[in-house]
Amino acid sequence: MATIDDIAKKLHVSKGTVSKALNGAPDIGETMRKSILEAAVEMGYTKPLRRNDSPQFCIFVDGMKYEKPGDFGYDIIIGFRKMAEPAGCKVVLQQLDTQFREENPSYDGFMLEHNFIGALFLDLHLSDPWLNQLHTSRTPAVLLDNYVKQNPTTTYIGTDNNEAMYLVVEHLKNLGHQKIGYLSGTPNAYVNRERYDAFFRALQQHGLPANIKQGSKSELLIENLRTDFPRLLNEGVTAIMCSHDLLANALMIHCHDLGIRIPEDLSIVGFDDLPICDYTIPPMTTIRQDRSQIGKSAYYALSSLANGICISTLLLHPKLICRQSTGRVPPHPPALDFP
Amino acid sequence: MATIDDIAKKLHVSKGTVSKALNGAPDIGETMRKSILEAAVEMGYTKPLRRNDSPQFCIFVDGMKYEKPGDFGYDIIIGFRKMAEPAGCKVVLQQLDTQFREENPSYDGFMLEHNFIGALFLDLHLSDPWLNQLHTSRTPAVLLDNYVKQNPTTTYIGTDNNEAMYLVVEHLKNLGHQKIGYLSGTPNAYVNRERYDAFFRALQQHGLPANIKQGSKSELLIENLRTDFPRLLNEGVTAIMCSHDLLANALMIHCHDLGIRIPEDLSIVGFDDLPICDYTIPPMTTIRQDRSQIGKSAYYALSSLANGICISTLLLHPKLICRQSTGRVPPHPPALDFP
Repeated sequence: MATIDDIAKKLHVSKGTVSKALNGAPDIGETMRKSILEAAVEMGYTKPLRRNDSPQFCIFVDGMKYEKPGDFGYDIIIGFRKMAEPAGCKVVLQQLDTQFREENPSYDGFMLEHNFIGALFLDLHLSDPWLNQLHTSRTPAVLLDNYVKQNPTTTYIGTDNNEAMYLVVEHLKNLGHQKIGYLSGTPNAYVNRERYDAFFRALQQHGLPANIKQGSKSELLIENLRTDFPRLLNEGVTAIMCSHDLLANALMIHCHDLGIRIPEDLSIVGFDDLPICDYTIPPMTTIRQDRSQIGKSAYYALSSLANGICISTLLLHPKLICRQSTGRVPPHPPALDFP
Repeated sequence: MATIDDIAKKLHVSKGTVSKALNGAPDIGETMRKSILEAAVEMGYTKPLRRNDSPQFCIFVDGMKYEKPGDFGYDIIIGFRKMAEPAGCKVVLQQLDTQFREENPSYDGFMLEHNFIGALFLDLHLSDPWLNQLHTSRTPAVLLDNYVKQNPTTTYIGTDNNEAMYLVVEHLKNLGHQKIGYLSGTPNAYVNRERYDAFFRALQQHGLPANIKQGSKSELLIENLRTDFPRLLNEGVTAIMCSHDLLANALMIHCHDLGIRIPEDLSIVGFDDLPICDYTIPPMTTIRQDRSQIGKSAYYALSSLANGICISTLLLHPKLICRQSTGRVPPHPPALDFP
C-alpha cells in the first residue's frame, strides 16, 4: 500500500505538503490539492484512522425520497444508523446533486478527502457517471439494487426478486389467472431489469404462458399508461404485476377512469409496500421490502467490506402482502373500449 | 406463540410434565417425550433463553471433510467460531450420520430439544430427508450452497457462481480459447446445478459458442472420465472448466495417462482453491472460495435470522487464481487416440 512518502516522491513535493493536502489544510492551493488527491487515489493510498477518530460512513442519495417516515429511504437510513451509531460510527448523508457532481468528479477521491471508510448508495441509475468508477474503485461501497461485477469492494444489496416474483405468480395462479402481464418503469435501473427477468422465470416455474409480449416497459409513466397498458390488454392479460407500487397506483387510477374495475375485471400487484398501499382504491396487494432490515444489513455488508470480507450479494426475503387489488380471474379479460 | 400451558392443555397432561419433557428430564418416558416435542414443534413453541444461558448454534456436517487444516470445512468452522465465541455463543458440531438420522427424524424437534437457536448446514444433498422440512421449518438455518425458497428463516450462503464463471471464461477467452467445455460432478447438489447454468450464462456474456453439448455431468467420477470427457473432446473443446478442484485434479491425472499435455494441448480450471491446487501437476488455475469469510458471514447470517432479519441470500466475491493449468489455445483441439 502506498505511503505519504511514496506520494511525495512521485510528485516531487515535501511529505508535509502531501499530508496537509490530504487533511484539507487551507494553505495548500486548489490545483496542488487536486493533483495530490489524484495521485493518492491512483496509488491506492488509504488514510489511517487516528486514535479516537470514529469510523465515518457516507450515505449517498440521488432522487430517492427519505426525509419523512413513509418515504422509501427513511427506514433504510434509520436501520443503518441503528446499527452504525451504537457501534461508534458516524453516518453522514450526501445528496448527489449537480453541484456536488461538478465539485467531485472522483468517488475514491471524495471518500479519501473526507475520511469516509465506506459508502451506501441508495439509488444510482445505470447511466450515473460514478457507476463506471465503481467497477475499479477501492473504497468499500454497498449499492442498493445495483450490481457491480468483479469489484471485491462492492456489495449488491436488495430484496430477492426471484422469490418475490415466484410468490406473486403463485398467488395469481391460485386465483385462476393464467395470462399475467408485467408493466415496468425505466429500463435504466438495474433493479427493473432484474425484476422483469425474474417475473418471466416465475411464469415458467409455474408452467404459465410466458410470451415476451406479456411484458412492457417505458421510461415515463405516461408511456406506461398510453402505450404499454393497451398493449398488455391486447394480449388478453387478466392480471398485471407492476415493477413498483407508485406505477401500480397510477395504473389503478387510470383503470378507474376507464371503467375497468379492480379486481373484478383486472388484478393489479405492486412492489415495495409503501405506506400508500393501505390507502389506494382498493388497498393494494404488493411485495413488502423490509426497509429497516435493508438498512441494518447494509451496515453489516459495509463493515464486512471494510474488514476485508468481500460480500458480493446480500438479498432479503420478500413478503407477499395480500390486500384487495387482486381477485378471482374474470370470465373474460378486460378490453379497452374507447367511445 | 404457543406456551407450555397451551401444549399441556392440548395433550391433557400437566404443565410440569411438558416442562420436564422439553428439558430432557429422565423421569419422562420416551413416548411421552416424543409426543410433547412433536406438539411443541407443531404449535410453534420456542424455548425462552434462561438468564446466563449462552445462545447455542449447531453446525451440521454430512460428507464434507473438516477435521484438518486444508479440509474444505475446517476454515469455515474456524471462521464461524471466531465470530460466535467472542460474542458469547456456544458452537456444537454434529455429524449427520445414519444413527443420528434414525434418532432424530425432525429438524425443528432436534433443535428445540437441544436448545439450539440456529444451525449451519455445511453440506446437504438435494435428496436429504431434512431438506424438505427446511421449506417449512421455524428454527433459523443457514445453508452453504443450498437455496430454500420462501422460508424466511433460511439463508443460502456461498460464493457468487455467476461472477466466478464470468472470470474463468474471460481468462480463457483472453488466452484465445473459443470452445470451452464444462465437466460437472453430481447433479444431486444444488451448487452443481447453479455452476452449470452460470457457466453457460458466462459463455453468452462473452459472446462465445454456448451449445449444451459443451456441458456434461455425471454422478460418479469414473463416468466423468469414461463418458463425459470423450464427449467433450468430440465437441472440439480446447479448455475444460470443472465444477470442483478434485474433479479437475482427477482429470489432469487422466490426461497425463492419455498423453494429453496440460496446458499445451488442453487447459483445465478447477473451483474451490483447495490446498492441493499448489501441488497438482501442473499447479491448478482455479476459483478461490474464501472459506474463512464464508464461516464469518454464515455466523452473521445466522444471528441476523435469529434477530428477525430475514436474509435470503448472501454471496461472496470469488477470486480467480491463475496457476499453470491454463495456457494459450492450442493450434488444434486435442483428440482421443486409442491404440
